[in-house]
Amino acid sequence: MTQATTQTGISQAQQQVEEELVERVLASFDNAPDPRLKQIMQSLTVHLHDFIRDVRLTEEEWNKAIDFLTAVGHITDDKRQEFVLLSDTLGASMQTIAVNNQAYADATEATVFGPFFLDDAPLVNNGDDIAFGAEGQPAWVEGTVTDTDGNPVPGARIEVWECDEDGLYDVQYTDGRMSARAHLFTDEQGNYRFWGLTPVPYPIPHDGPVGQMLEAVGRSPVRAAHLHFMVTAPGQRTLVTHIFVDGDPQLAIGDSVFGVKDSLIKRFEQQPAGTPTPDGRDVGEQDWAKTRFDIVLAPAQA
Amino acid sequence: MTQATTQTGISQAQQQVEEELVERVLASFDNAPDPRLKQIMQSLTVHLHDFIRDVRLTEEEWNKAIDFLTAVGHITDDKRQEFVLLSDTLGASMQTIAVNNQAYADATEATVFGPFFLDDAPLVNNGDDIAFGAEGQPAWVEGTVTDTDGNPVPGARIEVWECDEDGLYDVQYTDGRMSARAHLFTDEQGNYRFWGLTPVPYPIPHDGPVGQMLEAVGRSPVRAAHLHFMVTAPGQRTLVTHIFVDGDPQLAIGDSVFGVKDSLIKRFEQQPAGTPTPDGRDVGEQDWAKTRFDIVLAPAQA
Repeated sequence: MTQATTQTGISQAQQQVEEELVERVLASFDNAPDPRLKQIMQSLTVHLHDFIRDVRLTEEEWNKAIDFLTAVGHITDDKRQEFVLLSDTLGASMQTIAVNNQAYADATEATVFGPFFLDDAPLVNNGDDIAFGAEGQPAWVEGTVTDTDGNPVPGARIEVWECDEDGLYDVQYTDGRMSARAHLFTDEQGNYRFWGLTPVPYPIPHDGPVGQMLEAVGRSPVRAAHLHFMVTAPGQRTLVTHIFVDGDPQLAIGDSVFGVKDSLIKRFEQQPAGTPTPDGRDVGEQDWAKTRFDIVLAPAQA
Repeated sequence: MTQATTQTGISQAQQQVEEELVERVLASFDNAPDPRLKQIMQSLTVHLHDFIRDVRLTEEEWNKAIDFLTAVGHITDDKRQEFVLLSDTLGASMQTIAVNNQAYADATEATVFGPFFLDDAPLVNNGDDIAFGAEGQPAWVEGTVTDTDGNPVPGARIEVWECDEDGLYDVQYTDGRMSARAHLFTDEQGNYRFWGLTPVPYPIPHDGPVGQMLEAVGRSPVRAAHLHFMVTAPGQRTLVTHIFVDGDPQLAIGDSVFGVKDSLIKRFEQQPAGTPTPDGRDVGEQDWAKTRFDIVLAPAQA
């Protein structure tokens, strides 16, 4: 055939057919009463069609995509959210966080919320142990919460949660107990401190379609070791973040949900058994660690 | 803040954060052993992140999207494929068809396959009635199958299927009978003819999340009236298409799955009751219609 073609080998006539279809789909949303929904559906249309056209998706691949999404839907229930895992492993969750938590001065960076937060974690005092029986290396965590002008923020609410040394959160236990999570408040000087556990890497649930996808592309399902924080204070933007562990080999392999930011990697200083603890606590015949995480909150309207 | 911003109000620092994330996700697929899968996942990443960034997707909207996809997954079962409906109503199915059935000379255009094909429809002879008891206005359908050089294609296999006058396909009946579908072969001259039903518009299943989406954006769930064809012949590209009905008001409103192409709109000539039929069949005291659909098959390698 002697048709005009682009460098990608698609004839101009063919491109016109494809573009006219996109225009028709876009026009179908023209009368949406909600302008924001119209914007979202039209942008989705543009990018979805661009994807199909860019890869020249075959009908067999389309069928596989439908089967994949169906499997994602069918494994999802009250306890397992495979669509969230899919969004996480495609970096879509982290991109949404990035879009909604724009860099502001030296405010601490945000990262993914994850599926393991509970809103009724116990209140503890500064210096208390949040492990509540969860196993792992004791870790002393301390820091100061300030605003972006450097003023301490007293009374900031800090939620912390993490997995045990086996990589399991309490909600993954079968006995219903709550552990390795708590909330506390900064003191008059904006300081906080608690005993937690040195974080360890763990895999996201990978016995479903998302795990199969990761395996097919040669990716690790493992999350870099981390300790979750959520910090709220009046007039400040809520901060959802983690701290990561300097030296964790998973940092080089890659966090399976792309949550790592360099500014959030903290040194957990290893202390041999018998080293005196900051608060005089006797942790027994075991080594422990200490770290510092100073938190800077952006203003609520940033 | 005094940061460099683009015309969209996103600072360069923020754009850099977002772009670095995209790069990290792309790199995570670098070692995929299957180069095609790598290409697909990387293109998906680019377009998915572009979408999130373009609309500045909020965390609340992300949650709604997760809930929507979860509902699509949960209504999907062996008989109901809501992901296909979603793909159809976003024009993604039709774009995949377009990409895989490129225009070739004057070959007949393709359109969506739909969910109602069965591969064991009965064999009929030319001139037979494919309705098998399905109700509707009798329609005489005839035409010739040729290749793009104008040569008749004898022995081409033609599958036809359609809904009844209530807009229901046999697979939607509760009694398991097969009707309004058949297959037949072109004769020595490449001609075919059969009695079917004049197509009527009908809604796609719209009692689920896709129906809610269509309602939220003010779109009709109705498909323009159509009669399905699938034509196969050795050495020719398989053609999956419909013919539509000239004058169907849904053509102006818009087909809910974007399947219409102008070249596929055919006149169903209305014949008053008593008008002699082409094959002398007595259709009783009712009006009937006739139409012609000449089919041109592209070569298999086009």
